[in-house]
Amino acid sequence: MEQKLQRLLETTRRLLRRGAYSNLTKLLGKIHPADIAHLFRYLNDKEQPLLFGLISEPEVAGYVLAELDHAVSARLLAQLNKQQILELLQNMARDDAADIVQNLPEELAAEILGLMKDEESEEIEELLQYGEDTAGGIMATEIFSLREDLTVREAIQALQDAGDVEMVFYLYVTDEHNHLVGVLSLRQLLTVSPETVLRDIMIRDVISVRVDMDQEEVARVVEKYNILAVPVVDESNKLMGLITVDDVIDVIREEATEDIYKMAGASDEELLLGYQAFKIARLRLPWLLTNLFGGVITGYLMWRFKVTIRDVIALISFIPVITGMGGNVGGQSATIVVRGFATGKIDMSTLRRVLLKEMRVGLIMGMVCGLTVGLVAWGWHHNPYLGLVVGIAMTVAINVAATMGVLAPTFFKRIGVDPAIAATPFVQTANDITGILIYFTTATLFIRYLH
Amino acid sequence: MEQKLQRLLETTRRLLRRGAYSNLTKLLGKIHPADIAHLFRYLNDKEQPLLFGLISEPEVAGYVLAELDHAVSARLLAQLNKQQILELLQNMARDDAADIVQNLPEELAAEILGLMKDEESEEIEELLQYGEDTAGGIMATEIFSLREDLTVREAIQALQDAGDVEMVFYLYVTDEHNHLVGVLSLRQLLTVSPETVLRDIMIRDVISVRVDMDQEEVARVVEKYNILAVPVVDESNKLMGLITVDDVIDVIREEATEDIYKMAGASDEELLLGYQAFKIARLRLPWLLTNLFGGVITGYLMWRFKVTIRDVIALISFIPVITGMGGNVGGQSATIVVRGFATGKIDMSTLRRVLLKEMRVGLIMGMVCGLTVGLVAWGWHHNPYLGLVVGIAMTVAINVAATMGVLAPTFFKRIGVDPAIAATPFVQTANDITGILIYFTTATLFIRYLH
Repeated sequence: MEQKLQRLLETTRRLLRRGAYSNLTKLLGKIHPADIAHLFRYLNDKEQPLLFGLISEPEVAGYVLAELDHAVSARLLAQLNKQQILELLQNMARDDAADIVQNLPEELAAEILGLMKDEESEEIEELLQYGEDTAGGIMATEIFSLREDLTVREAIQALQDAGDVEMVFYLYVTDEHNHLVGVLSLRQLLTVSPETVLRDIMIRDVISVRVDMDQEEVARVVEKYNILAVPVVDESNKLMGLITVDDVIDVIREEATEDIYKMAGASDEELLLGYQAFKIARLRLPWLLTNLFGGVITGYLMWRFKVTIRDVIALISFIPVITGMGGNVGGQSATIVVRGFATGKIDMSTLRRVLLKEMRVGLIMGMVCGLTVGLVAWGWHHNPYLGLVVGIAMTVAINVAATMGVLAPTFFKRIGVDPAIAATPFVQTANDITGILIYFTTATLFIRYLH
Repeated sequence: MEQKLQRLLETTRRLLRRGAYSNLTKLLGKIHPADIAHLFRYLNDKEQPLLFGLISEPEVAGYVLAELDHAVSARLLAQLNKQQILELLQNMARDDAADIVQNLPEELAAEILGLMKDEESEEIEELLQYGEDTAGGIMATEIFSLREDLTVREAIQALQDAGDVEMVFYLYVTDEHNHLVGVLSLRQLLTVSPETVLRDIMIRDVISVRVDMDQEEVARVVEKYNILAVPVVDESNKLMGLITVDDVIDVIREEATEDIYKMAGASDEELLLGYQAFKIARLRLPWLLTNLFGGVITGYLMWRFKVTIRDVIALISFIPVITGMGGNVGGQSATIVVRGFATGKIDMSTLRRVLLKEMRVGLIMGMVCGLTVGLVAWGWHHNPYLGLVVGIAMTVAINVAATMGVLAPTFFKRIGVDPAIAATPFVQTANDITGILIYFTTATLFIRYLH
């Protein structure tokens, strides 16, 4: 936390304790709403609603609410009455308001939409129809556009008359049926004669996204073309809304977090649960129990080799290193493939090269690790054959792991399952199984030299 | 890959094979430079330089070069002569040009800077002084600013006269010594009288970043305040450059990738190496060998318990599940903490709550998994005491793992090491060790009931 914020937090807490509420309201009026939202992260469940009630400007309260995690904003809203919620929602951007409404208890949401002006509630209900993770779900609907038959003078006039609309830096141009036909920069308006018709100066190649496009895809478009906003159109190219790049940043962070959580066998839904241990445990347990089942299978396989183990007890010393290294290498390959899929750097057409690369890398690492552990085994138990068995098993296990690390996420992607879940726990459990099989099969083959 | 791009790729390949170069040049003139850059990903090492040579506009070639991965751009540049490289660099944004120069062989870089106009080369050399990962390293220096004593009329005139500068949507206002003193939106200029002086309408609270600020920090500022660009100032508040949000997106993606790679025990430097298996293996091996060492220690500990194992061979059936589950749970907790540090959701002041939460979650999951595996052990080997030992060991191991998953990345952060490396492989190896110790210590305590 920056120092400035640290001091602000301390002051806020002190004033809260003292009950110096009017001082606090004054303080809140002076700091940036983004800083207020940031403060909330560090406040406890009692301080949060208290401070929220002290924000005097409904615009600021709305802004803060939109920035907070769903878990926190839900708790704050639960303490307000309908009229207060209504006022807040009316002071927020429509897309943020829709987000809030979506997370209200169903009955309350319906009541509040009923209290709104028809126009407002219709827009919000329209927004609610789009999937949360689609372009429609994240777009702003307060969009400023210009008809193609306007002159530059008229366009500037319209711009001067426009109220508070989503930031204007690209000006979107439509035909009489609201179809998106062109785009202009504000600066262009200043550099041509006032009588020019927009149609004649607009750029006709507008990059736009469809209202049902997945938000990750939207992020990729914005990123690829380095644009600051992208207009959203429906299936007939009618202009529906606008997504600015600050929304895209949120998407990119969220998706990265989601992937990272999934790779570790957790779920980003946890973020909504705050500190509720039971619910979090319930989210993580199914996956954990699946892995438990995998672990029991690995154990069963070891059990099948109990004669070999009892015979040559030294073999047990290398079980952890063989399964562990297989897991590490497989996890690396899987992670690289999963991340490559997510960023678009890897797709089905480059996959063969990636697979071959990971196999080559696996071969090199397998030989180095195999040689190392083989020498360790030889030196430790004074049996060159044990060294040979351990070394061969390690080399083979690492190669299998690298290959599986590429193939598992690919397989999941092919069958339409998020490849991220194929990363760490899955690949690791699978590699435990293959590692044990490889190790003890090799040992059984060489058993007569191991005594 | 989208269909459009797929078709484009096929056409490009066909024309390349046929040697229809003039057709290709024409085609390239018609498609968006971002799409051209995208095409390069799917072309092989022979096709890439061929196609690059066919881009007729130096601006487009420069744009494409800036968008490509370093590995690819380095390969393309290696095939050009000094004059060609010079021309390309002169047609790129300074910050992109600096990036390219940075990645050239040192001697060539010096020669090319020598060939440039003094002004250009000075600016690039200045940019090269800033660390690659700082605000200075990613800012654009072609920034448009206005003096505070200008009138709106003069400001609009200046805007009309300005050439191609970094996108203008916020107008930064400076005093006579180039200190940043305010900001204006382009739209504001249109809504006030032409004689107004900028000083009287500008917003004085400008959010800016210092030239030496880490790029991750910059990303967090831009994200927090939802701004589309942030001005960069030096220690005396002089305006040095501008970072737009599209650069910030790249930072966020890169940092997420870096973290994800590190969590898996790989390095994002791999991305620069393309398909060079030897170099990639060399990057991954040190970490892998560290884990190998950890695995050998785990094996040594098991070896110390060989009497117990030989005595009750059934114990081996639960080694994989106990070490595996500890690794999974520890990995989950570590991942959540590492990601929390990266996004700013967790810091030292909220850490205690996170630790307590993970410990509670660990307790619940430990009991569920312990009970499950205990029942499995009892049912399988028909020995309730074995079930008890396995169940207790599992419960304790999972609790230790969850705690360690929080503490390990925290410790790394405290001593100034990137906590991401404390995620999967480290925590897993550590948990293998504690898991084995817990399991066999418990078993040794109950040994007389296990026969």
